[in-house]
Parts: sequence; C-alpha cells; structure tokens
Amino acid sequence: MSYSNLDLINQCDAFPYYHTSPDLYAASISTYYELRVLNHDYGIGYLLPSVASVFRGIANWDLDDETRTLTLTAGNNADERSEAVATTLFALKQTGHFKVLDKWRNERYAVFGKEKELLFAVERSAAPLLGVVMYGVHMTAYVREEDGAIKIWTPRRAKTKQTYGGMLDQSVAGGIAVGEDPFESLVRESAEEASLPEDLVRRTAQAVGTVTYFHIRTEKAGGETGLLQPEVEYVWDIELPKDVVPKPGDDEVEEFYLWSIDEVQEALRKGEFKPNCALVLLDFLIRHGILTQGNEKDYIEIVSRLHRKLEFPTL
Amino acid sequence: MSYSNLDLINQCDAFPYYHTSPDLYAASISTYYELRVLNHDYGIGYLLPSVASVFRGIANWDLDDETRTLTLTAGNNADERSEAVATTLFALKQTGHFKVLDKWRNERYAVFGKEKELLFAVERSAAPLLGVVMYGVHMTAYVREEDGAIKIWTPRRAKTKQTYGGMLDQSVAGGIAVGEDPFESLVRESAEEASLPEDLVRRTAQAVGTVTYFHIRTEKAGGETGLLQPEVEYVWDIELPKDVVPKPGDDEVEEFYLWSIDEVQEALRKGEFKPNCALVLLDFLIRHGILTQGNEKDYIEIVSRLHRKLEFPTL
Repeated sequence: MSYSNLDLINQCDAFPYYHTSPDLYAASISTYYELRVLNHDYGIGYLLPSVASVFRGIANWDLDDETRTLTLTAGNNADERSEAVATTLFALKQTGHFKVLDKWRNERYAVFGKEKELLFAVERSAAPLLGVVMYGVHMTAYVREEDGAIKIWTPRRAKTKQTYGGMLDQSVAGGIAVGEDPFESLVRESAEEASLPEDLVRRTAQAVGTVTYFHIRTEKAGGETGLLQPEVEYVWDIELPKDVVPKPGDDEVEEFYLWSIDEVQEALRKGEFKPNCALVLLDFLIRHGILTQGNEKDYIEIVSRLHRKLEFPTL
Repeated sequence: MSYSNLDLINQCDAFPYYHTSPDLYAASISTYYELRVLNHDYGIGYLLPSVASVFRGIANWDLDDETRTLTLTAGNNADERSEAVATTLFALKQTGHFKVLDKWRNERYAVFGKEKELLFAVERSAAPLLGVVMYGVHMTAYVREEDGAIKIWTPRRAKTKQTYGGMLDQSVAGGIAVGEDPFESLVRESAEEASLPEDLVRRTAQAVGTVTYFHIRTEKAGGETGLLQPEVEYVWDIELPKDVVPKPGDDEVEEFYLWSIDEVQEALRKGEFKPNCALVLLDFLIRHGILTQGNEKDYIEIVSRLHRKLEFPTL
C-alpha cells in the first residue's frame, strides 16, 4: 500500500464536504445528532445515533429525535455545565457503555461557543463521543545541514501507547487542557516528550499557523465506529542546533530518528505516521518549498484541506 | 476607519459560507446562475442574473431559467470551446454590454474541469463576468536586519492603473496566462514589476503554499455590482540580499518602500493594501510567527479563511 499525499489528507480529514459530495454530506448530517447547550441556537458537535440514544432520559440532557439534537440543559455557566457533563460521563464510564471511556485520562478539554466563551470542559477520552472540537499543539523540530538540506527529528511512539502505538509522530505534540495557554502547552510537551530545554523553546519556536481537519475515528473491535473528531492543531517549527538532541522524556516515545526529507516522505508514503501528524508534516513540506505546484498535482486541494473551516465554533 | 485582520479577510473572502451563514448562502446560490460546459455535470462559475440573461439566444449557449444554469454547448475540446467563448465575449465587448470588458487585456486565463483538464481559455477581463476561478502568483520580498527583524519591500501601484490605482501591492504579483507554468509566471513578473534578477529568483524564491478566497467585486458606477471572483494565488517568499533593491520595471508600479513590520501592519489597518495582497501579507505574518494565537484573537478563523476550499474545480 502506497499513500499519495492526498490519500493522507483523505484518511485524516474524512468528514464529507458540502460542496464536493453533497449527497454524502446530506447522508452524514441526517445520521448524526447535533450537540447543543441550552439557550444557544447552534451546534457544537455531532454524535452517533447509538451514542445519542444512551443520553435518553438522563437528567440534564434533552434528546429530540425530531430535530435530531441532544441538548445539555443543565447549568447557567461553564462550571455548572462542566459538572453536569462530568457526572454523566463518569456514570457512563462506570456502566461500561463506551469502549473509549476505558481510556479515561483525567484530563479536561475545553468546548467553546460562538463568542469564544468557554461553554464547558469535557474529559479528553469522551470528547469524540460528543464530536466536539479538540485543540492540540504540534511542533516539527528540524536541523539544517551545511548544504541547506533539512533533517527532521521523528519520534516513534511506544508500542504500549493506548492509541497509534508504534507509529511515527511529530517531534512534539499533545493536547491542550482546559484553561491552558497553547504556547505553555507546547513548552510543557517539549520538555515531557522530547526533553527540549525550556528556554530554547521559548526563544526559538516559531508559530506558523494552524492545521484543521474533521476526522472520523476508526476504532478497533468493540468500540463505536464513526465517532467524529474535528480538530485544531496549533503548529510551530523549531530549528534545533546540532548539539540539541531530543530524548524521550517519558515512556510515550520509544526513540527519535534524525531523518532526511526523503526518509520522511518514504515513511509518509508507507502510512507509518499517525494520521494527523502526517498532515502537519505536509504543511511543513509546503511551507518550506519542498512540496510545490511543480511536483504535487493536488497542491491546491491539499493546502485548502490542511486548513479546513470547521462546522462548529472554534476559539 | 480601522480594519482588523478579520475585516481584511471579510473584505476579500466575501462570498458567504454554507455553514456559518446558511440563509445568506442559500440566498446567494438562488440568485446566481451556474456556469457549465456541455456533458459536464458540475458548475465552474456563478453569473449574475443580469449577466446570464445577456447570453439568452446567443449561439453556442443554453440558458435554463428552471435550473438556473448557463451552459456552453459549443465544442468538443478546449480549443473549440475557447474559440466559441472568445467570439461571444468579443461581440459583447463591441456592443458595450459590460463595463468590465472596456478593460479588455488580450490575455487569456485558463478554466479547468474536475480532472484538472483545460476546459477553455477566457479573456482575463471577462473572467469575473463568468465567475470562474482565476489563478495568480504573489511573492513577498523581504530583508532580514542584523537583529533578525524583517522588512518588507512594498510597492505602491501607479495612480493611473486601471484597478486599485494608488493602493499598496505585493512585492511581486500577477495573473497566470493559459498554458503558463506558475513559477515561470512568477519569474516573468519579478523581472517586469520589480526588476529582480532572474537567476536570483530561480535560486532563492521559496514556494510556501497558496492563498484562496471567494471575492465579490465592488465595481464603481456604471459596472455590474456583485461579479464573483474565486481565486487561487500561488505564494512565494524571497529573502533579498541588502544590495538587491526592487525597482519598477514598467509603469504599473510607482515606487517601492522598504517597510518594517510595524509600518506594514499600520498600512493594513488603514486599508491601504489591495484587498487580496492584504491576505497574502497576513499569511506571511502568520507563517513568520508575527501574528500568533497569542496576539490575534481570530487566529484560527483567519488561517482557515486564507485557504478556502473553493466551490469549483481547481487545477
């Protein structure tokens, strides 16, 4: 199996587009239930019908099969809503309704409204059940050789990791906890995952934009299939001095390789990267003039797809 | 009047989005006529009703008010279609139907189909009448000071220029003629507009992606208002040595300023840049870590909007 760059995009940004696949889009929209919070007249996520139906009759939730909406009715502020969400999700974890909740992390992610206000926080492992937008940080660490060629620090995930074990990863990547500043999240992950010196990251990491996509999760046996995961990744580049060598700082990373662009592209073609990390790498290759309109026939589509305008409000 | 960065985006990428403004989107779609070519079951542009109606009864065109489509029925290949399009548009120029055709340029732009095949070529000044996707090249030339600070070479358009006279422009920008390679187009424009040495551009211009948007033209008195211009701009950066000074190579540019980031951002806020050039500059500021999530509250939306996935097929 060899993946084109567009294949890699399609694999990660898999939710249909209204314009290019109107029938498929309409079918998806009429399948999923829309998540709302009381007194807010817009959706903030999509749930599978099998997930939505579990909320039927649970206190603080209103399931409407006519409008295909699930509304969180509890609370007048973020704290109260977060409390209600946590109570329900913890109960669902206890009852064993959803396989994804076995990976309970005790980390909370933020869900934002149209005014960029915090609506509520949600346990990380449960976010895909609700289909809400998740936020992360990704940084590509690279070295520039004397001849100008770029090499990229590429970690392999520990085989024991809950998700995507053994696959290749971004130099640094992680999720943003509720209330955490994205850049502070990056500094923390850089230390935890790659043992990068904090002052070096603060001085030289360069913000370069965001990568956004609408992922459909493909769970293994026993889990729900079709959970949705719209995501915003804040992206940085960092050019490392040759004497700074990333090292696994916890047991989540097995080892780091310093790979040439050819080696990275070969691994991309083989599908060895975690899907969203492949997208951040494609963005890197485009911004650094390695993928161009001259060598990538799907250049225009790829650039747009890397920056999808999500259906739901974002920060 | 002071423009936020999101204001600058809204000004250029003005066609409504299906998800964020469903009513406005539906109203627009039900106003415009869709352009098609025979035996191709998809749209390639939108026309104003007042424009579409002029094609009624003209040979080689079929106007259908039921489906609100205008179909080019002539030709079995790009050459034949181009010929038919040229004949009609030249006649419309002669009859003085459309003000935009007074700016006839004798340059032809390409219109592509879903398989990235050339469907036909169209006179540049007429492209917005048909609402088809146009392609251009934009390059930001900058200088890096000893302290690392960036200065940007910023030209002012000649006051006599047909469009946006006297406004600020990209260091280098221009349209891509049918059959022309984008990079060759850039090299040509770099010489014509900024007198940049060809070998320097070939060696050091760095491809950095595309900027895409769906513009609604605001013509002055006498012209059609609401003409559509979906556009793809291929984007390059070039870091110039200090002794290379861009000079106007034709009478389209008045002069070049070497401006600090503060000066560029001040001019952006004042709305002094040609609207699509403002977008390419915002993309530059984002990729160079000057606009970040820490200082731009609409960061996520801006990055997505700079890379709109257009409704029509693109190259």
